[in-house]
Amino acid sequence: MKHIEWKDHKLYLLDQRLLPEQTVICANESVEDVCDKIRTLAVRGAPAISIAAAYGMVIAAERYRFGDFREYMEENHRLLAATRPTAVNLFWALDEMKQVWQKASPAEAPALLLAKAKEIEEDDVRRCLRLSENGAALLPEGARILTHCNAGALATGGYGTALGIVRKGYERGKVAMVYADETRPLLQGARLTAYELRADHIPVTLITDNMAAHLMKQDKIDLVITGADRIAANGDAANKIGTYGVAVLAAYHHIPFYVTAPLSTFDLTIQSGSDIIIEERDGEEVRSFQGVASAPRDVPVENPAFDVTPHELIKALITEEGVIEGDFEEGIRRQFARKAR
Amino acid sequence: MKHIEWKDHKLYLLDQRLLPEQTVICANESVEDVCDKIRTLAVRGAPAISIAAAYGMVIAAERYRFGDFREYMEENHRLLAATRPTAVNLFWALDEMKQVWQKASPAEAPALLLAKAKEIEEDDVRRCLRLSENGAALLPEGARILTHCNAGALATGGYGTALGIVRKGYERGKVAMVYADETRPLLQGARLTAYELRADHIPVTLITDNMAAHLMKQDKIDLVITGADRIAANGDAANKIGTYGVAVLAAYHHIPFYVTAPLSTFDLTIQSGSDIIIEERDGEEVRSFQGVASAPRDVPVENPAFDVTPHELIKALITEEGVIEGDFEEGIRRQFARKAR
Repeated sequence: MKHIEWKDHKLYLLDQRLLPEQTVICANESVEDVCDKIRTLAVRGAPAISIAAAYGMVIAAERYRFGDFREYMEENHRLLAATRPTAVNLFWALDEMKQVWQKASPAEAPALLLAKAKEIEEDDVRRCLRLSENGAALLPEGARILTHCNAGALATGGYGTALGIVRKGYERGKVAMVYADETRPLLQGARLTAYELRADHIPVTLITDNMAAHLMKQDKIDLVITGADRIAANGDAANKIGTYGVAVLAAYHHIPFYVTAPLSTFDLTIQSGSDIIIEERDGEEVRSFQGVASAPRDVPVENPAFDVTPHELIKALITEEGVIEGDFEEGIRRQFARKAR
Repeated sequence: MKHIEWKDHKLYLLDQRLLPEQTVICANESVEDVCDKIRTLAVRGAPAISIAAAYGMVIAAERYRFGDFREYMEENHRLLAATRPTAVNLFWALDEMKQVWQKASPAEAPALLLAKAKEIEEDDVRRCLRLSENGAALLPEGARILTHCNAGALATGGYGTALGIVRKGYERGKVAMVYADETRPLLQGARLTAYELRADHIPVTLITDNMAAHLMKQDKIDLVITGADRIAANGDAANKIGTYGVAVLAAYHHIPFYVTAPLSTFDLTIQSGSDIIIEERDGEEVRSFQGVASAPRDVPVENPAFDVTPHELIKALITEEGVIEGDFEEGIRRQFARKAR
């Protein structure tokens, strides 16, 4: 079963909101369908939503009937771009698609866009595999790794970023235990990371987010690896809410904290993390879980979906192009220059 | 409605597991009933369980029929003491009760023990009020306070420790906002702290545990106050899991971190926090959320109910006898000496 699949002119998506209790695949036949799945986190993870959005533009081109083609595509681009504000991969993929439809006729656009979307998807798996190799090389023997949220196969085109490194490291016999933060409010760590690792028979222990510090103090964690949703030019990284706290705790306990993401997650138009827009989501996510109330129904909440970890707290950034340590700004620039050649 | 009430030879307890959705009071007629309520957290909070256990010994004495009275009482004492290992108030209250029944005849014991249990209960409210005065004096104007778990009226005989300080501070116009960590796995912050503060019309914002660091970074928190379940002679404090992490985050952000508890929470037989027994609870608490599965059913978990915050991370200890800063060991010793006079 693939969690993102293009078939018969439809985009099939595994509904990640229902995992691990139910495995439901839904067919998406309109751009509105795809937008809804991204907005409600049926598909989530920075690389995965970029792939879903790319296929969304294929659907748009295939459904085109009349009127100004460019205006029509622009409008669908806007709809998809408006689904979520933080992960930059979404905008990156939509821009890649735009470069195709801008130069194509309405008749040739569907096939060209489909080829591009498939390329983005396959390219993402290749990037994940390469960054996983780069990350696995850094792991000590018998590594006990803490991770936050889900940066696994489900969050990407396949294989994963943080969990890709775990998978590759496990293949090499270097991973003794993965501690997975459950990651409230939507519990991607409990529902998705634990599920992926169990399926792959990689040893995993689930903890609530507030147990990480206690485990670090007991010397049970050797390193932390998380994914990212947007990384600024200076290396500051936005990721799932709670990541920043884990980074502070890791620094306090002298535990290396790694962030891994493909270069499509970097946003060189943004100098530092303070310029990254943080999505604020519906308060019901905090007041309840899977529809069951956990707090007074009228209590005010905050619900930022992300936070920003300043680069000082990050030991290294791991991308498909290599490992960036020390001067992040210079290292990031160099990787982009190498890729452009 | 009182959450702990002795009436008609029964101990009535508000079932805190069902709050805030349902308000259910259950009558406890046997020591086993009381043990069950403490073990399952129907009644929780270090001072509250000490009061429940004291009334449990009244029930024991009232139900005595034949056999060796001292042996019978000793056995009931043991049953109650075995319910939970970390909060020292439980053992303190049982010892207070023991001093009564050891010297009493089976006939006179029930009345003497009831008087002692009522004294423990009323004394706890007085201690809470006094430590709340001591703590409120420390609050800055317009204080934005972060709290973890529930150290409120429900956790005590009434009024509360950390929330007692909040209440007293609010009366004095000094509290602008209370941020309540939801406190996974059992959500005492979301279910109980938010509920108590809403009932008292004190401004509260609920957050998931992993949002605290982000709020601190945004300069939304002026100070942290938590309760405690056991405090060692050097000031190291055991409290609900997650407290230690909040203390580290507060230190990193230069935010004062206060711990408040009555002297019955101090255990001078223990030199430092490393000697405090940490209760490990059933993994189902982590694998589910309000009874809804939130993780693969077979995933291994850790579920320590408490962690220990070293005294270096604590700005001051606030008790009914005053505020202890600087040399905790000396300050604690002095308060005990003053109380003994």
